[in-house]
Amino acid sequence: MEIPAPALLQAFGGHRPDTLPVWFMRQAGRSLPEYRKLREGVGMLDSCLRPELAAEITLQPVRRHGVDAAILFSDIVVPLRLAGVDVEIVPGVGPVVAEPVRTRSDVDRLVAHRPGDTSPVAEAIRIVLDELGDATPLIGFAGAPFTLAAYLVEGRPSRDHLAARGLMHSDPETWRRLMNWTADVTGEFLRAQVLAGARAAQLFDSWAGSLSLADYQAHAAPYSARALARIEDLDVPRVHFGTGTGELLVAMRDAGADVVGVDYRIPLDEANRRLGGRTPLQGNIDPALLTAPWPVLEAHVRDVVERGRSAPGHVVNLGHGVPPTTDPAVLTRVVELVHSL
Amino acid sequence: MEIPAPALLQAFGGHRPDTLPVWFMRQAGRSLPEYRKLREGVGMLDSCLRPELAAEITLQPVRRHGVDAAILFSDIVVPLRLAGVDVEIVPGVGPVVAEPVRTRSDVDRLVAHRPGDTSPVAEAIRIVLDELGDATPLIGFAGAPFTLAAYLVEGRPSRDHLAARGLMHSDPETWRRLMNWTADVTGEFLRAQVLAGARAAQLFDSWAGSLSLADYQAHAAPYSARALARIEDLDVPRVHFGTGTGELLVAMRDAGADVVGVDYRIPLDEANRRLGGRTPLQGNIDPALLTAPWPVLEAHVRDVVERGRSAPGHVVNLGHGVPPTTDPAVLTRVVELVHSL
Repeated sequence: MEIPAPALLQAFGGHRPDTLPVWFMRQAGRSLPEYRKLREGVGMLDSCLRPELAAEITLQPVRRHGVDAAILFSDIVVPLRLAGVDVEIVPGVGPVVAEPVRTRSDVDRLVAHRPGDTSPVAEAIRIVLDELGDATPLIGFAGAPFTLAAYLVEGRPSRDHLAARGLMHSDPETWRRLMNWTADVTGEFLRAQVLAGARAAQLFDSWAGSLSLADYQAHAAPYSARALARIEDLDVPRVHFGTGTGELLVAMRDAGADVVGVDYRIPLDEANRRLGGRTPLQGNIDPALLTAPWPVLEAHVRDVVERGRSAPGHVVNLGHGVPPTTDPAVLTRVVELVHSL
Repeated sequence: MEIPAPALLQAFGGHRPDTLPVWFMRQAGRSLPEYRKLREGVGMLDSCLRPELAAEITLQPVRRHGVDAAILFSDIVVPLRLAGVDVEIVPGVGPVVAEPVRTRSDVDRLVAHRPGDTSPVAEAIRIVLDELGDATPLIGFAGAPFTLAAYLVEGRPSRDHLAARGLMHSDPETWRRLMNWTADVTGEFLRAQVLAGARAAQLFDSWAGSLSLADYQAHAAPYSARALARIEDLDVPRVHFGTGTGELLVAMRDAGADVVGVDYRIPLDEANRRLGGRTPLQGNIDPALLTAPWPVLEAHVRDVVERGRSAPGHVVNLGHGVPPTTDPAVLTRVVELVHSL
């Protein structure tokens, strides 16, 4: 008798499993006291690159919440660090790049960096898979080229990404070289995770929503496609997610994604309509409601699930990452609710 | 012989003046060396409330660029400061509220504050009008209730506005009281400007784009409508602008706006389509292109103007505020170009 595929992979494949799968972006992280304890005194990027630590952090939310997927504990700038770029995660700020990449010669220096050794990540994945077995799949994770390029150009988080968005228009050839390099580095990082055993892959474009559709199509999507193409032959579902991307959903799908992640701003039935009813969806519980009284949150989760039924497959998730202040018991309760529906 | 109305007011009224009007959000501000000189040693909110200083800052970009409107130099939190709320503009951070408003009792304390004395603003406007005369109208300016409430609840700028968005769902009655107060205070501030001689009024909702359409309609738009209703009897065009609001344009118009400001993410012909072809538009040159080589920027401005011709009226502006690093000569050149088209 054939063992059925895990619910997550069924839903990513456009099917409707017996139990609706659910996981949470940033489920491995600051909302968990056991995470905060493990991280004490260890820098963010260091913690991603110590295999035993990264594996343990990856496993914590699976044990605690009973979610249907693990997601590798990582950060979108890890492949930059591995490639030798001087980047740090500054607490309370975010990624800070020591030498922002603004000019043609900056890009020349950058592209001389080769993708780094991904063995710490592969080792972390081996440890994770030893515990998870076949029942709970691990999702690999990487940042999309535009978001990485935005950090490289701005040097730090930015609201408007004026320098990055300016560069794509002012010097399209320099932008193209920057984006090709970024796509290769992050695509290679995603590939390493799948080769090590990740059974799905998510490309995360935090800042895509700062682009018009025209700019996204011309200056970002081709490089997301290039990154996703790096795992095309490996036959795992590819999820593409960004925030504020209601206008970009079709372009994000057409960049080579099998599944589109939807942020909390667009109802899933509307996202499904925009995508022509043929793309499995992931999302989109509003993280702001995790602090609401349970009846309010429960009604919202039920509404998300109901709207998600319009799509050919649905993996329940948040519409953005778990806020650090979230009570983890609430997340566990959401998992129980989703599994009961 | 009747003197024709200024081009700005013609376009706001849905007509096509001989010369296309143009002004820039944040035209009075850090991009101008003469502004930086005047502001030396004076806090942001103090500079808004010293009539001669605020008037001089308001006039600087009109003299320099030849724009078709002055906009009162102010800040969206000025009415909070006037009402006695402890709020500061912290350089490099933004508005910081000493005691964030999170609970019912916090709101009780807040709503005990009455709208403050707007005479410094009225006095600034009198000085401005003395120089402007009738040819160049002054636009009054106030923050929309949701954006103000987001600052009050979060206590500072935030990417996700989780606390504010959480409150509207967790405790809708407290949210309603907070928003009613905020709408009255900011609406009164706008009214004071029009009574003092502003000939148009812009309500600016910086953070509306963090809301889903459903949340915007239920928890934000009714209060923007309440604020705009405070000047309904004064017969000046009302402009409603926010960023990331492509999904919200109709709701923003229907809150009582005569003109909708469009950010750089949506082409004006698409915005016009969404609005049913019956609403004058303002926007939407991408500020990121102000640093591009002139031929790139020129082509973009021409494209904006061309797409704007689909709307029943068009006032050229940026799709967001002038970045502080902008070369003011570029803005002057954009004005000359727009006036030549």
